Amino acid sequence: MTKAQLPIGLIGAGRIGRVHAQHLSHRIARAKLLMVSDICEESAQQCAAQFDVEQTTTDYRRVLEHPDIRAVVICSSTDTHAQIIEEAAECGKQIFCEKPIDHGLDKIDRALQSVERADVLLQIGFNRRFDANFRRIRDAVVQGEIGNPHLLHIISRDPSPPPIEYVKVSGGLFLDMTIHDLDMARYLMGQEVEEIYASGAVLIDPAIGEAGDLDTAVIVLKFAGGAIGTIDNSRQAVYGYDQRAEVFGSGGSVQTGNNWPNQVTVLGRKSVTRDLPLNFFMERYLDSYLDEMRQFVEAVVTGGPSPMSGQEGRISVVMGLAAWKSHQENRPVRLDEIDPV
Amino acid sequence: MTKAQLPIGLIGAGRIGRVHAQHLSHRIARAKLLMVSDICEESAQQCAAQFDVEQTTTDYRRVLEHPDIRAVVICSSTDTHAQIIEEAAECGKQIFCEKPIDHGLDKIDRALQSVERADVLLQIGFNRRFDANFRRIRDAVVQGEIGNPHLLHIISRDPSPPPIEYVKVSGGLFLDMTIHDLDMARYLMGQEVEEIYASGAVLIDPAIGEAGDLDTAVIVLKFAGGAIGTIDNSRQAVYGYDQRAEVFGSGGSVQTGNNWPNQVTVLGRKSVTRDLPLNFFMERYLDSYLDEMRQFVEAVVTGGPSPMSGQEGRISVVMGLAAWKSHQENRPVRLDEIDPV
Amino acid sequence: MTKAQLPIGLIGAGRIGRVHAQHLSHRIARAKLLMVSDICEESAQQCAAQFDVEQTTTDYRRVLEHPDIRAVVICSSTDTHAQIIEEAAECGKQIFCEKPIDHGLDKIDRALQSVERADVLLQIGFNRRFDANFRRIRDAVVQGEIGNPHLLHIISRDPSPPPIEYVKVSGGLFLDMTIHDLDMARYLMGQEVEEIYASGAVLIDPAIGEAGDLDTAVIVLKFAGGAIGTIDNSRQAVYGYDQRAEVFGSGGSVQTGNNWPNQVTVLGRKSVTRDLPLNFFMERYLDSYLDEMRQFVEAVVTGGPSPMSGQEGRISVVMGLAAWKSHQENRPVRLDEIDPV
Amino acid sequence: MTKAQLPIGLIGAGRIGRVHAQHLSHRIARAKLLMVSDICEESAQQCAAQFDVEQTTTDYRRVLEHPDIRAVVICSSTDTHAQIIEEAAECGKQIFCEKPIDHGLDKIDRALQSVERADVLLQIGFNRRFDANFRRIRDAVVQGEIGNPHLLHIISRDPSPPPIEYVKVSGGLFLDMTIHDLDMARYLMGQEVEEIYASGAVLIDPAIGEAGDLDTAVIVLKFAGGAIGTIDNSRQAVYGYDQRAEVFGSGGSVQTGNNWPNQVTVLGRKSVTRDLPLNFFMERYLDSYLDEMRQFVEAVVTGGPSPMSGQEGRISVVMGLAAWKSHQENRPVRLDEIDPV
Repeated sequence: MTKAQLPIGLIGAGRIGRVHAQHLSHRIARAKLLMVSDICEESAQQCAAQFDVEQTTTDYRRVLEHPDIRAVVICSSTDTHAQIIEEAAECGKQIFCEKPIDHGLDKIDRALQSVERADVLLQIGFNRRFDANFRRIRDAVVQGEIGNPHLLHIISRDPSPPPIEYVKVSGGLFLDMTIHDLDMARYLMGQEVEEIYASGAVLIDPAIGEAGDLDTAVIVLKFAGGAIGTIDNSRQAVYGYDQRAEVFGSGGSVQTGNNWPNQVTVLGRKSVTRDLPLNFFMERYLDSYLDEMRQFVEAVVTGGPSPMSGQEGRISVVMGLAAWKSHQENRPVRLDEIDPV
Repeated sequence: MTKAQLPIGLIGAGRIGRVHAQHLSHRIARAKLLMVSDICEESAQQCAAQFDVEQTTTDYRRVLEHPDIRAVVICSSTDTHAQIIEEAAECGKQIFCEKPIDHGLDKIDRALQSVERADVLLQIGFNRRFDANFRRIRDAVVQGEIGNPHLLHIISRDPSPPPIEYVKVSGGLFLDMTIHDLDMARYLMGQEVEEIYASGAVLIDPAIGEAGDLDTAVIVLKFAGGAIGTIDNSRQAVYGYDQRAEVFGSGGSVQTGNNWPNQVTVLGRKSVTRDLPLNFFMERYLDSYLDEMRQFVEAVVTGGPSPMSGQEGRISVVMGLAAWKSHQENRPVRLDEIDPV
Repeated sequence: MTKAQLPIGLIGAGRIGRVHAQHLSHRIARAKLLMVSDICEESAQQCAAQFDVEQTTTDYRRVLEHPDIRAVVICSSTDTHAQIIEEAAECGKQIFCEKPIDHGLDKIDRALQSVERADVLLQIGFNRRFDANFRRIRDAVVQGEIGNPHLLHIISRDPSPPPIEYVKVSGGLFLDMTIHDLDMARYLMGQEVEEIYASGAVLIDPAIGEAGDLDTAVIVLKFAGGAIGTIDNSRQAVYGYDQRAEVFGSGGSVQTGNNWPNQVTVLGRKSVTRDLPLNFFMERYLDSYLDEMRQFVEAVVTGGPSPMSGQEGRISVVMGLAAWKSHQENRPVRLDEIDPV
Repeated sequence: MTKAQLPIGLIGAGRIGRVHAQHLSHRIARAKLLMVSDICEESAQQCAAQFDVEQTTTDYRRVLEHPDIRAVVICSSTDTHAQIIEEAAECGKQIFCEKPIDHGLDKIDRALQSVERADVLLQIGFNRRFDANFRRIRDAVVQGEIGNPHLLHIISRDPSPPPIEYVKVSGGLFLDMTIHDLDMARYLMGQEVEEIYASGAVLIDPAIGEAGDLDTAVIVLKFAGGAIGTIDNSRQAVYGYDQRAEVFGSGGSVQTGNNWPNQVTVLGRKSVTRDLPLNFFMERYLDSYLDEMRQFVEAVVTGGPSPMSGQEGRISVVMGLAAWKSHQENRPVRLDEIDPV
């Protein structure tokens, strides 16, 4: 570890934890991953071996108490996020936490208060804000390339549903999957949402419905400035990961299509074909995961503000809860019904 | 006029009337335009001169009573459609009528009853059903190329708002502009809609709001089969006419983009550019206007069914009325609230 | 026929003749097709019946001697073009003639001298100059959008080879098919060609080789200003008609793709597909055929210059002959070897 | 260094050397960069510091003599490649060498003989073979997706010319820039070239001409199977790096466009725009540099064959020399004129 490097501990060595481990170990020169924690010992050790990390533990508190570690990256299960944020803040660690903070506003608020008290930095893992396509749309909107925004559309479809066991503890479609798009809506438009109407359905797998969840949804957003937006969610696009967006305004429209494994077209006897888009978030958003972590390290090292604050992460949960209420009652729901000012 | 030609009378020689006159006179061999009627004499005569029509009148009843004329094409103002349909049916004429039939279900029902009693053919001018792009989507859905449809999106934006005087008598956004998209939704999905939620706004011109209308809207459609759709409407896309659609289903997705004046791309020092899409419906949908009239003539001559019946035209009005009610009450509205079974 | 209409006679009622007949009869208000001539009587009569032409003949001289006819459209076989141009000019008719004028420079020169002596207008049927895509490229080059042109590429592939009987009398690939591209090269670049290197092959059908012709070729053009161009020709693109071009220059690049029957994309389990491009010249270039004839009629009526002169038509033949010589001797050939100044 | 890691020495720490250093240090788990050599001490040390390499030297022989180092990566100036390959082979090192091996066939042959004698692996740095777009074209051709290949086109344009000082020692356009495309031509077609016709020009900067070089060229390739190809080269595309290719065959066509920084389109009042393609080879081909090095390490570790042999590297030089001769004598040149069998 060089003097200029930020010593970091990782809590949770699952799929997304390993993505961050790889970036912290090999791609971000200013970071040094010192310790990996996972409740499963084997998982912690595999991750450490793969990415040249020296220390492992099954108890995340050993990370929090480690005197050299200045920052933690929380990738454990969602129901532990708020608790670990609180403890990490009390230990004075700078914090990166995967989304969502929690499904309950009370727990979120307590965690955010700890962060504020301890005056540490908290960044929530809404990686899509660091994606080149969406950033380009945001830039166009902010720089006035399309005038005042009037309409927004986000298409966000997964290639296949998660296992039913995961569905049951996921918080449901709106808090698990849509939450990314709810944050993206505010990011792309640069405006707050006031009211949400959600229309959901179970069209892909009845087992998802039996688990109390939805697999298909359209969400309508009314923005403070009068603009209207929609989010389209499906748990199963057979052609792969479908991630598109458009903002339309008084001066034009800015749109993004998907990312592709190659730029090749084949013209044959029957049709013109190209290969499917990148299949899932690991391929599609890999660069954004790297960039969000780079910006986290940069913010900690330079003392800059969080590029994606806890407060912003909280709003997404409020929106997700409003979407659920709207779906259940089949009527538009204002955000201040969920979160009175 | 040859023996095989269908003698036709035109009622209303405005902009859309002249499009049909041109097609009937020059592009459809089996049709013969015998007489043009318009309440403005000069307009009737100009149209007749331009498209080689021998007879003109300012009284549409002279068209209906003309013994040689077998079919009429009604392009007068919307508030006269239902009345003229009734009279034309009583005269035994085959009828093509521009959309919408009327804004009131009572008048529509009376007109449709006349048509049924007289056993004449009635075709409503939903020209987009005859467009190559939308027909290709419909084919893909019907032929199962994308499995069961789950989600639908229609983008339909005009290049600029109509004059305020027109707005005031138009029946409002949902009955004037959205009505095309409401019909398209049923056509593309091959399913009926059960419930509508409409969210509208005045973002382009306050004068439109003062006239009691909207200029921007998102409409959510719930289909009988559980699928969900959206329509995006704006009265002003500064880059021209924007007409796109997507149907997403269990087996894939089918999407159409806009039509373009050319296929040329310019790569310069600052960006890659192409010319704007075709500007408005006259260029964009010209082929579909020709094709709908060709199919009307064909249906009359061969005694085939109407390719776009009065009953279908009526459903679009029911949907437009539901959209208005939903917007006014800010809640989802079932179609059977408007049109009890 | 109205006073303002130009009375025209058609010589040759084959495939391309009927395209022109249709446009002259139904789509160009200022034209009136008076007589159709074809050496096959049935062909002349069918064409006349289809497009409402009153008079027919099997002897083109009756067209030339017709006192009312002011302009002729020559669509007979290539070996008769030069002779008919000469006679038509002597009769004082304005002349539209399909490309190429002839395969021999002597006959071409004699025909052009007759035209000059008679002071009549001659337009050669290089319809692609009237195509929206190619005109847009030409405009970009002329208006300096891409700076000084450095490189040109033309892709021009047919969907399938013509019958061997046609191949034998066609003048060979370079004078039959490439000749369009040779003219397009000069048109797009706005420059003359000085030297040609042609490399041909028989890769599709050995019978074409046995007939002394080629079915595949690359032609390199050196322009007067130092720029270099290529033409890619194939007699058989199984996916349909392939017509693309690019001009690259000091300030950028302008490129055109193909025209498509619709703008629809289907995303399925295995790939993304779209329908094939428009299949052949009748669909692909229909608008350009209409526009070239409209401009011919306009030029005659207003006394304007020919939009595509006999002299320009002659240069294409010189280039085609140079390509043949280059291919036979496998070396670059300067145009002044074929046509000494 | 773990037991499974391949110890490697880098010779030449310039721009491309650092790309390889980064990949070997941080991205390829099975590689371990032990020593960096550069004739400029500062350059070697900077590179070592940046990528965590322990040892540096200004004498490449210290790398070759290093007992732990099993493989070397040669990124020094072209005129030293052949000599270092010879010495490295004699030291029994496995060799990766940047393209081209040399500009002279004698020196190449001597180097290749050393490699053969020493029975070491030699891989030449034609990175584009490891690019996803070009590999997809190659796969389509090899798997018969487009039938027998008939025509090939490669567009390869740099964003701006190199410094004149570099131009003077570069070996000229055909050996410095085109050489990548000459290799790509063989790779994409899966066939050898028999004859080359090159037509070059100085259109961008007269100083390039004064240095005896070209800045613009079209090269025609005749393949053994009768197919014909073209390469388009320009030293300056103001819109960035332009890297496209097409193979057309009896069963269809496969084409690749450029890579882009994002998938965003902006529709404004005047035109539709998107950002320029990736600017130069560092961004455009970064993944391919990583992949070629990964495959080198893999081949050494597993004892597999070179994915890009010295013999293949030699053929590109023969082709480049033929292109020069063709340009100078303005005639097609067979490869066996340069390299008699």
